[in-house]
Amino acid sequence: MLTILGQNFINGARSALGQSLHVSLDATTGEVLPYAFYQATEDEVDAACCAAQDAFSVYRQLSPARRAEFLDAIADELDGLNDDFVAIVCRETGLPAARIQGERGRTGGQLRLFAQVLRRGDFLGARIDLALPERQPLRRADIRQYRIGVGPVAVFGASNFPLAFSTAGGDTASALAAGCPVVFKAHSGHMATADVVANAITRAAERTGMPKGVFNMIFGSGVGEGLVKHPAIRGVGFTGSLTGGNALSRMAAERPDPIPVFAEMSSINPVIILPGALNARSATVAKELANSVTMGVGQFCTKPGLVMGVRSAAFSAFLDELKVQMGAQPPQTMLNAGGLKSYIGGVEHLGAHPGVAHLAGQAQGKKHAQAQLFKADVSLLIDGDELLQEEVFGPATVVVEVADDAELGRALLALRGQLTATLIGEPSDLEQYQWLVPLLEEKVGRILVNGYPTGVEVCDAMVHGGPYPATSDARGTSVGTLAIDRFLRPVCYQDYPDALLPEALRNANPLGLRRLVNGEWSSAVF
Amino acid sequence: MLTILGQNFINGARSALGQSLHVSLDATTGEVLPYAFYQATEDEVDAACCAAQDAFSVYRQLSPARRAEFLDAIADELDGLNDDFVAIVCRETGLPAARIQGERGRTGGQLRLFAQVLRRGDFLGARIDLALPERQPLRRADIRQYRIGVGPVAVFGASNFPLAFSTAGGDTASALAAGCPVVFKAHSGHMATADVVANAITRAAERTGMPKGVFNMIFGSGVGEGLVKHPAIRGVGFTGSLTGGNALSRMAAERPDPIPVFAEMSSINPVIILPGALNARSATVAKELANSVTMGVGQFCTKPGLVMGVRSAAFSAFLDELKVQMGAQPPQTMLNAGGLKSYIGGVEHLGAHPGVAHLAGQAQGKKHAQAQLFKADVSLLIDGDELLQEEVFGPATVVVEVADDAELGRALLALRGQLTATLIGEPSDLEQYQWLVPLLEEKVGRILVNGYPTGVEVCDAMVHGGPYPATSDARGTSVGTLAIDRFLRPVCYQDYPDALLPEALRNANPLGLRRLVNGEWSSAVF
Repeated sequence: MLTILGQNFINGARSALGQSLHVSLDATTGEVLPYAFYQATEDEVDAACCAAQDAFSVYRQLSPARRAEFLDAIADELDGLNDDFVAIVCRETGLPAARIQGERGRTGGQLRLFAQVLRRGDFLGARIDLALPERQPLRRADIRQYRIGVGPVAVFGASNFPLAFSTAGGDTASALAAGCPVVFKAHSGHMATADVVANAITRAAERTGMPKGVFNMIFGSGVGEGLVKHPAIRGVGFTGSLTGGNALSRMAAERPDPIPVFAEMSSINPVIILPGALNARSATVAKELANSVTMGVGQFCTKPGLVMGVRSAAFSAFLDELKVQMGAQPPQTMLNAGGLKSYIGGVEHLGAHPGVAHLAGQAQGKKHAQAQLFKADVSLLIDGDELLQEEVFGPATVVVEVADDAELGRALLALRGQLTATLIGEPSDLEQYQWLVPLLEEKVGRILVNGYPTGVEVCDAMVHGGPYPATSDARGTSVGTLAIDRFLRPVCYQDYPDALLPEALRNANPLGLRRLVNGEWSSAVF
Repeated sequence: MLTILGQNFINGARSALGQSLHVSLDATTGEVLPYAFYQATEDEVDAACCAAQDAFSVYRQLSPARRAEFLDAIADELDGLNDDFVAIVCRETGLPAARIQGERGRTGGQLRLFAQVLRRGDFLGARIDLALPERQPLRRADIRQYRIGVGPVAVFGASNFPLAFSTAGGDTASALAAGCPVVFKAHSGHMATADVVANAITRAAERTGMPKGVFNMIFGSGVGEGLVKHPAIRGVGFTGSLTGGNALSRMAAERPDPIPVFAEMSSINPVIILPGALNARSATVAKELANSVTMGVGQFCTKPGLVMGVRSAAFSAFLDELKVQMGAQPPQTMLNAGGLKSYIGGVEHLGAHPGVAHLAGQAQGKKHAQAQLFKADVSLLIDGDELLQEEVFGPATVVVEVADDAELGRALLALRGQLTATLIGEPSDLEQYQWLVPLLEEKVGRILVNGYPTGVEVCDAMVHGGPYPATSDARGTSVGTLAIDRFLRPVCYQDYPDALLPEALRNANPLGLRRLVNGEWSSAVF
């Protein structure tokens, strides 16, 4: 059996000063699980942030290779968790064991990928402008730049990925890779899972000799504000609702010293079905699309929430097929009762709008989510109605039929920022609709062709981000190795003695980096 | 003679719809210059932002080489301005002609350096993860990422660098390099200068076939809010006061869709004189330091505003020498009457504090700035008094003597974020005080050894940034080529047909980039 103490993780130890206790529920049965979690007190929030601050001065000075050992060790610890762990995650989230096993693999894979980034060293951004002693009218100094961690980072995990976007997820992995200790706010939806994962991280930290405060985790409701406003915290990673992300962004902006927030929030992920594809493979697309909408009970940030096409007999036939597919979906268990309630509310809200018709989907019960298909008038998008812009978290999607290409352009222009946009088309479609791409580039972080946005590959080239409200800062990604950039800042040294420079910038190039030397990339030693 | 119409620059044309006119003053005499500048109306602000938005869709799609032509052409146009131009800048700012000529060279050099960045192409951040069709359990898609401009950028120039941090300065150059059209708010302190430079940019845009709205400039007071809140604006660059930068940051954060602000605001740039240097070259250091404090009438963001040393006979002797040097400085003309008033206020504020002693400096007159030297009790820093943390813009500096190394550490820890910190020391000092460097790295953007922070080299490795309140976002720099990163965001393409990909990501690598392909940097073609 796993030991789940439910105490806060502070400075490498456990702490339970709070009087108030929280419980975790079985997502399927609603049963209370046999664990209690201690609400962090104000003092404990402070202690966690101070521990991260103390750890920062040591941790950020460790070589990238040492930090890579730590990340690899976390991945190994996750791999080593047994079936009891998987069972607990399944109970807390209602997700099937195969999905949890896959998500664990992905979470470990992400940690190991960041370890590779650390060993590659390009994230350091080493740049050297050598002195020009003879330059007229003034000598140029020797100037060398690289990037260091911003400082301790507060991370808020997501309900829908209890592993990959949570305790040891992408925000934590990228912050730790950048040299930033983490204070993690455990998600109330899977606190037992968080406890086990935080223990795994703590073991990895001990095993690889990391400073004690490198990872801290607090439980409780309302502790986020104290965390984001704590002077030691220098950045925030968040995955969750638009309301939650906006609130954290506001708190961070109102600090005496504002800090950056990277919140991944809300996206309806338009899928545009082009005419050639409708003619060639309408039924297949309908089936694949329904599968993407309902996969994981529609609880993905990248679930297609908007399906668009130009009015035609073929599009009508496609819709008929999509109705059949969506109507045939079985009821499914959502992550928690709050999520189900919010889904039911969202579906009712859509159905009540006079510009929206219900096309398919069985009557919604009180225990499970039913897949639902709606069709909305394009004027809702073009006239700026907020209804369609709002993400409905769950297995529902909305079709918007446009009169012609011009209206398609207008409707897309009216969209807010998105994580993804997808084109389903034959090669001739893609040539003909090439004009869509620049428009989509300005709206989204990822453009897919003939795929479905659910399923976010963890790799160097992934962008899981996009203009507001998809995220709070379009310049970041929360999946893939570029995520490390969010938590780095440049520092430069002018005329500094070589022996005292950080290794990345020394003449002898002991880390073997490619560096930008006098305007050219080079591995030169000098 | 130069033609200075004083009309707003909108979409490649001039516009003067406003009723209210502004005048520009001779900084030395207070005389009204023979030009009038038209306050931009709300409609004109809107038109300028919309013009930038329209230009964005064309401009960002131009090849980097085409944008480089534009930047080079602006530099050429600046070089081509005659002595009448230099004379106008001198009249508006009170700065000497040699300084203005030097600053013009620096401004053109910066534009040409960004042109090099564009031709090098690394700013594109091209990353390719090739498809893995055989991967189990799921095929990996082909995913390719590069960076595009965030969209139109609003730029607010500085009073103290009428060229290098103004109309065609670093923020404008980096935004244009990133593919972002600019709407520039002309600084009220040098509107004639701004008019001439904006004309030069417009000529360069015409000559190189850029879209009309690629650069726009508006005059007027109170127009900044409309600019920062305009839906078309996607980012802000600002150089100026803490109050001004904070106000813009707040406006940007309160938008329905918040946007990033890069404000360079306030820094007191500590200079730490180490014991060995005091023994070896006290008099030289005093002279050099006084020169750095009073250079440009102390109107540099990097002026040393805090001088620190450990109490000793040698430090006392150094202070005696510094008093002589600071007391001997001639009165100088500041950039404008407002700046002088603010300087006089700042000096009086310092002098009135019971913990601050006036060490040197002639009585302050009403027309010119006198250099002033103060000494403050270290408790002001350690106990968190705001007085010493506030930048006094002008030729004043404050000495803080500490009892020992431990107190030096405490005093530095109490400092807010800074653009620079400087160590003056012999080689043995630098070894002995190596413990200071990690502490300073967390406080500043640039650490100098045996130099003075005034004089910011424009190069790849420069960081002109730092933690708040030095800037609003420690992850940026406003000088040097890394400044382009502030205005770029990543986009990725999944399974996109090669022929339709942006050039940077095509198999044939037509731009000849080094790209991160499957985790390794390579110029490979495939």
